[in-house]
Amino acid sequence: MTTARNGDQSLIIVMRPDAAPGAVDAVVERLRGVGAEVHLSPGLRRTVVGAVGDGSRLQQLPWEAFPGVERVVPVLAPFRFVGREFQPERTVVDVGGVRIGGGAFTVIAGPCAVESRDQLFAAAEAVKAAGASLLRGDAFKPRTSPYAFQGLGEEALKLLAEARHRFGLPFVAEVLDPRHVELVAGHADLIRIGARNMSNFPLLAELGRQPKPVMLKRGFTATIEEWLSAAEYIYKEGNHDIVLCERGIRTFETQTRNTLDISAVPVVQALSHLPVMVDPSHSGGRRSLVSPLTLAALAVGADGVLIDVHPAPETALVDGPQAILPAEFAELMDRVRAVAAALGR
Amino acid sequence: MTTARNGDQSLIIVMRPDAAPGAVDAVVERLRGVGAEVHLSPGLRRTVVGAVGDGSRLQQLPWEAFPGVERVVPVLAPFRFVGREFQPERTVVDVGGVRIGGGAFTVIAGPCAVESRDQLFAAAEAVKAAGASLLRGDAFKPRTSPYAFQGLGEEALKLLAEARHRFGLPFVAEVLDPRHVELVAGHADLIRIGARNMSNFPLLAELGRQPKPVMLKRGFTATIEEWLSAAEYIYKEGNHDIVLCERGIRTFETQTRNTLDISAVPVVQALSHLPVMVDPSHSGGRRSLVSPLTLAALAVGADGVLIDVHPAPETALVDGPQAILPAEFAELMDRVRAVAAALGR
Amino acid sequence: MTTARNGDQSLIIVMRPDAAPGAVDAVVERLRGVGAEVHLSPGLRRTVVGAVGDGSRLQQLPWEAFPGVERVVPVLAPFRFVGREFQPERTVVDVGGVRIGGGAFTVIAGPCAVESRDQLFAAAEAVKAAGASLLRGDAFKPRTSPYAFQGLGEEALKLLAEARHRFGLPFVAEVLDPRHVELVAGHADLIRIGARNMSNFPLLAELGRQPKPVMLKRGFTATIEEWLSAAEYIYKEGNHDIVLCERGIRTFETQTRNTLDISAVPVVQALSHLPVMVDPSHSGGRRSLVSPLTLAALAVGADGVLIDVHPAPETALVDGPQAILPAEFAELMDRVRAVAAALGR
Amino acid sequence: MTTARNGDQSLIIVMRPDAAPGAVDAVVERLRGVGAEVHLSPGLRRTVVGAVGDGSRLQQLPWEAFPGVERVVPVLAPFRFVGREFQPERTVVDVGGVRIGGGAFTVIAGPCAVESRDQLFAAAEAVKAAGASLLRGDAFKPRTSPYAFQGLGEEALKLLAEARHRFGLPFVAEVLDPRHVELVAGHADLIRIGARNMSNFPLLAELGRQPKPVMLKRGFTATIEEWLSAAEYIYKEGNHDIVLCERGIRTFETQTRNTLDISAVPVVQALSHLPVMVDPSHSGGRRSLVSPLTLAALAVGADGVLIDVHPAPETALVDGPQAILPAEFAELMDRVRAVAAALGR
Repeated sequence: MTTARNGDQSLIIVMRPDAAPGAVDAVVERLRGVGAEVHLSPGLRRTVVGAVGDGSRLQQLPWEAFPGVERVVPVLAPFRFVGREFQPERTVVDVGGVRIGGGAFTVIAGPCAVESRDQLFAAAEAVKAAGASLLRGDAFKPRTSPYAFQGLGEEALKLLAEARHRFGLPFVAEVLDPRHVELVAGHADLIRIGARNMSNFPLLAELGRQPKPVMLKRGFTATIEEWLSAAEYIYKEGNHDIVLCERGIRTFETQTRNTLDISAVPVVQALSHLPVMVDPSHSGGRRSLVSPLTLAALAVGADGVLIDVHPAPETALVDGPQAILPAEFAELMDRVRAVAAALGR
Repeated sequence: MTTARNGDQSLIIVMRPDAAPGAVDAVVERLRGVGAEVHLSPGLRRTVVGAVGDGSRLQQLPWEAFPGVERVVPVLAPFRFVGREFQPERTVVDVGGVRIGGGAFTVIAGPCAVESRDQLFAAAEAVKAAGASLLRGDAFKPRTSPYAFQGLGEEALKLLAEARHRFGLPFVAEVLDPRHVELVAGHADLIRIGARNMSNFPLLAELGRQPKPVMLKRGFTATIEEWLSAAEYIYKEGNHDIVLCERGIRTFETQTRNTLDISAVPVVQALSHLPVMVDPSHSGGRRSLVSPLTLAALAVGADGVLIDVHPAPETALVDGPQAILPAEFAELMDRVRAVAAALGR
Repeated sequence: MTTARNGDQSLIIVMRPDAAPGAVDAVVERLRGVGAEVHLSPGLRRTVVGAVGDGSRLQQLPWEAFPGVERVVPVLAPFRFVGREFQPERTVVDVGGVRIGGGAFTVIAGPCAVESRDQLFAAAEAVKAAGASLLRGDAFKPRTSPYAFQGLGEEALKLLAEARHRFGLPFVAEVLDPRHVELVAGHADLIRIGARNMSNFPLLAELGRQPKPVMLKRGFTATIEEWLSAAEYIYKEGNHDIVLCERGIRTFETQTRNTLDISAVPVVQALSHLPVMVDPSHSGGRRSLVSPLTLAALAVGADGVLIDVHPAPETALVDGPQAILPAEFAELMDRVRAVAAALGR
Repeated sequence: MTTARNGDQSLIIVMRPDAAPGAVDAVVERLRGVGAEVHLSPGLRRTVVGAVGDGSRLQQLPWEAFPGVERVVPVLAPFRFVGREFQPERTVVDVGGVRIGGGAFTVIAGPCAVESRDQLFAAAEAVKAAGASLLRGDAFKPRTSPYAFQGLGEEALKLLAEARHRFGLPFVAEVLDPRHVELVAGHADLIRIGARNMSNFPLLAELGRQPKPVMLKRGFTATIEEWLSAAEYIYKEGNHDIVLCERGIRTFETQTRNTLDISAVPVVQALSHLPVMVDPSHSGGRRSLVSPLTLAALAVGADGVLIDVHPAPETALVDGPQAILPAEFAELMDRVRAVAAALGR
C-alpha cells in the first residue's frame, strides 16, 4: 500500500491584462502558503506566475477562482504512479500464468456474454485450438436498455471456471457493482472494468483493494489523461497489476459504433508503464472490422487484443453483430502470427 | 411496481442487395417466431422488412448478425414509460413541498460541496434570501484525480439537514455508490445521480427501489436517447419521481468545460413527460457564464436551474471557478423574475 | 488598410525531464534570435521557458520540433485586431442603415433559398410586417449532394434587390466562390460566409478587400479561436465590418442537426469586440426548435438572430424542415419584444 | 462526362402516432407525383411509408416538412458513381506512371511545404533512396492564422517539377483556390484537396473538369458519407481518377492533433471502389506517431500513406512537429517492406 502523495506538480498561472497588482500578490501569497516555490514572469501585457510544489496541495486549490486569474495550465500530468516518470520500465502483468506486456501480443477471445454451457464450451474449445491465451465471457452485462439481457451472474462465473479447468484458459470477466467484486474476484483471473464504469470511483477503489489483476477499459468519452487518472485510483489503493484497454471513443461518425483511437496506444505507451490492449470488436461494432483492426492493433504496437468469438452470432443474446466465427478467428490468428514475426515480436 | 414490458416496437430491417433469397426468409421466420407482424417491401435492388411486435423480445435479438442484413432501424424509441406516448400529461415532482415541473421555474442553489457549517449556512442564508426554493450541497464528490477532496460524507448530510430546518430549504445531494443510497435517502429530499454515473446501472436500479425523488443528470457523453433510457431504469423499478438535468456534453470546444446543449431542453420535452432542468454552473465551468446561461435556460423553457453559489469561491475545495457570489446570485434572481413574468411563467 | 502585425505574443515552452542541458540553450538562443525576451524557470524535474515577443515571428517557428521540447503553450490568442484587448469598445456594423450590435436585437428573416419571385415576396412581406429588420435569401447554396438544388444565382440576387426596394428590407446573401464576390457584393447589403467556408482562406481574403459588411458563420467543426482567427483574415485585409454568427457545432448527438453552442455567445463577447448573432434554424434543423432557441439567444445576450421563414415549407427546395411559417414568426416576434423589454434591451 | 443521374433511392418515412389520416395521403400523393413506387406498413401506433424512386427527385423534396412526418430514413447512400454497387471492381489510379490501388502500398513522402530548393532536393533525394514512389511538397498552404507562412506559390511548383525530373518522382501538391487549378494542374501529377476544402464545392467541381488525378482528403469534421459525396462531386463532372485520404477527425481528445479514424479504411473499402490512403503525419501531429500509424495503415489494408519528411524539422516553416527525419523514414520503409511481405502485398 503506497502513501497517497501525488509528487510534484508545476502550475503556470496566467493573469488577465487588467488584473490589479494586488491580485498577483494574493495568488503568490497563497501559493507560498501551500509550500510552492514561485517564479514571476512580468510580461508586456500580463504577468505569468510559475509554481512548483506538492501536487495534491496545489491541485486542490481553485486557482481559477482567484480575482485577476485568466487561465491555469498544469505542467505535469494529474497522475503519478502509473506514469513513466515514476517507473521507466514497462509493467508486465501475470494473469493466471499468462503474461500481458513485455513484448508479447496476447490474444483474449470468447463470447461477449456467457449464455449457456454449450455456447461457452464451443467457443472456448475453438479459441484455444486457434491459439488464444485467455478466455473472455461475461456474467454481468451493462445494457443501455433495462429490457435487454443482463447476464447469468454467478452461474456464468462457475461455467467459466469449469472452462478454464477443461481448456487451460484463464479468464477475464467484467464487474459492474462494488458489491460483486468479491464474487467476481473469487472466480476470475483478470477483472474487467467496462467503459461505462471507468469513472465509477467507488468501484475503482474496491478493485484497488483486492489482489486480482484488473483490466481498465477506456471510457468512450474519456481523454487519455482521465483514463490514466482512473488507473491511478486503482494503483494508489495498492493494486499495481493493471492492464489498459482502448475500445473506441464517441465521435460524430455513425458508420462505426465508436471510433477506435488507434493512436492512443503509442500515446499511452509514452506516458505510462502499464500494458495497453485493444478491443477491435466493441469499438467498430461490426464483424467485418475485427480482422483489419486486430492487425492494425498489432502493427501499432499494442500488447494484445480482446476479441468476441461466438459459435453462432445470430443467436447471441448480446452484441451479436460484432462477434466473429471460430473459423474466421483461426484464419485471423494465422495472419497475426505472420505479422508478429515480421515485426520481430 | 410496474411490470417490465417495453410495449410495442417496430423495426425496419434493410437487406443487402446481394442477400440470398433464403436470407430474407430466415429473418422473416425468426421475426414471426417472436410474435412480430411482418411486412415485406421488395425494392429494385434490395428488400426492406418491416416488423411490429413486443419491444423487449424484438430488441433482444441480434438482427444485424443475421446473414444478408445490412442495417436495422428501430422506429420507436428504446424507452417507454418515460415517453410522452405512454403519458401525454407532464409529470410534476414534489420535493419536500417544492414542485418541479408544471410551469414553475425552480431555482436550486448552494455550494458544490459542503465544506463546513459556516460555509454551508452562509450560502443557504443567502440563497434563501434571494429567492431559491431548494438547497444544493454535496457530501460525496466524484473526482477525476484520486488526490482531490472527496467530500465530508455523513457529516455533510447532517449539516444539510440542519440547514433545511433552519432556512426552510429542502435539499438535493449526490450519491455515488449503491451502498450509500440508504444513507443519502435518509437525509436528502432529492437524490442526484451525477453525469459520471448516468450509466451506472446498479446505482440506477437501487434508486428506483427507494421512495425519494431522483434527479438524473445527463452524462456528458450521453445521447438524449441514452439519457431517457437511463431514466427508464429508475422508472421501471417503481420510482416515478424523476427530474432530468442537462449539464453540457463533451465536444471539441475547449473554451468551456462542456458545451451546454440548450436544444436538449425542448427536444426532451417533446419526447418525455419528465421535467428537465439545466445546470449552468458545471456546463460552462466559468463564473461569468452562469447568469447568461441561466437566463437562456429560462427562455428556452427549462423547468429550473441548479446553481453553484459559494460565499468565498477562491477558498472552495471543489469547483470554485464556476461558483457565483451571493450578491451576483441575488442580482440574477431579479432578472429571472423579470424574464419569467415576460414569458408568462 | 492596417499593416499585418500580430502584436505581442507570449509562449511557455515546457521541456522534457530528460532534455539535455544544451536543448534548453538551443531553444533560448533561437527565441532571442527572433527578438523575444526570455525567462527561465528551472523546476525540480523540468525547465519551463517563458518568452515574450512579436507574435508573427514567434508563431512561425516550430518550437515543438526542437529536441527536448515537450509542450508549447501560447499565452495570448492567435488573433489580434478582432480581440477586445486591441479594441475594448464594441463594434456596431451598419447594414444598409440597420445597425447590428450596440444593444439592439436585430432579426434577419426570410427563406433559406430564393426559389421564385412569389415565394420571396410572400416571405418578405410577412417578415417585414412582423418586425424583421433585414431579409435573408440565398442565390448560391452549398449542398452536400451534387444532385440537390444549387440556387438560382444572379436571378435570385436581382429578385432580392427588388424585394429590398419594395419592402424596405436590406438583405444578406451567401457567397461560395471567390469569383462571385464581385457579383454578390454588387447587390447584397451584407455578405454571408457559410459554415462550410469558414476556413476557405482565399474567399475570406477576397471579402476583406471589398467594402460591404460580412457575416461570418462559425464552421460546425471550428473552435471559437479558429472562428476569431478566420475573422482576423478579413479584418487584416482592411474590412472591419464583420458580424459573427453561431450556428451549432458537430457533436455525437443526433436528435438535432447540430448542437447550438449557446455559451459561445458570451465567450465570444468576452474575447472580441465584434457583434455575434445566432442562427436558431440551421443549428437545430427542426421547426419546433426555432422559437425556443431564438428566445434563448436573446436571453443569453446575442446581438440578433437569422431565421428561416418560408410561406410553404413543404414545397421548399432547400431546408424545408426547419423553416417556420409567417404566422409562427409573427407570434415569436411578440415574445421577442416582451423578453427584450424585460431585459432592458 | 456522365449524366447527372443519382440512380434509385429508397426512403422510409415514419409518421407520427397522432398524424391525421390525410397527412399520410398527402405524403403518398406527393411521392407518386415524383414517380416513386409506394408501400404502406400500417403499424399499431404509426404508419410507415416506404418509397422507391429516382434519387435526385426523391432527395430534393423536404419530406420532414410535411405535416405528420416524424422521421425520414434514406435506405441507400447519397452517392452513386463512387459506390461499389455502381462499380464492384476496385479503381486503380495512375499518377505519372505510379499506380495507387490494386494491392500495392504506395508511399508518398516529402516536406509539408516547399521552402527552398535545398530543402526540397535534400528531402526528395532521401525519400527516393529509401523507396518512396511519389513526392509531396506544397506551394500553397491553408493556415489558421493569417500571419503564418502561406507558401511560395508558382516558384514552388517549378522546383517540384525540377525535382520530379531529377529524382524520377512524380509529385502531389495542394490547391486552395479555384482560380489556381489551372496553374497547379499544369505542373503537378496528382492534385490534393485538403481537409479544410473537402466541402468547397466550387473547387471540387473545378477539379472534376480537368484531367489530372485528384486526392481528396477527408474533412476533419466530415462523416464518411459526406466524404464520399464530395468525391461524387468530382466524379460526376467527368474526372474518375480519385484517391481518398483519411487524415484524422476532430474529437475531444487533445493528446493528438486529430484522431486518426483507422476504421474508416475498411469501411470506405466496403462502400466505395476508390483507393484510400492514410496521412499518419497530419492526423497525429507528432513525430513519434508517424511510424506506428504507418504500420497500422498498412496492416488495416490502406492503399498507401502520405508522410511528411523534412531534412531539418526544427527549421521547418510549416508543421515541423510532425515531420520525420530522412533516417527515420528509411528505417520505417524497411519495416513497411517486412510487414507488407507478411501480409502478401
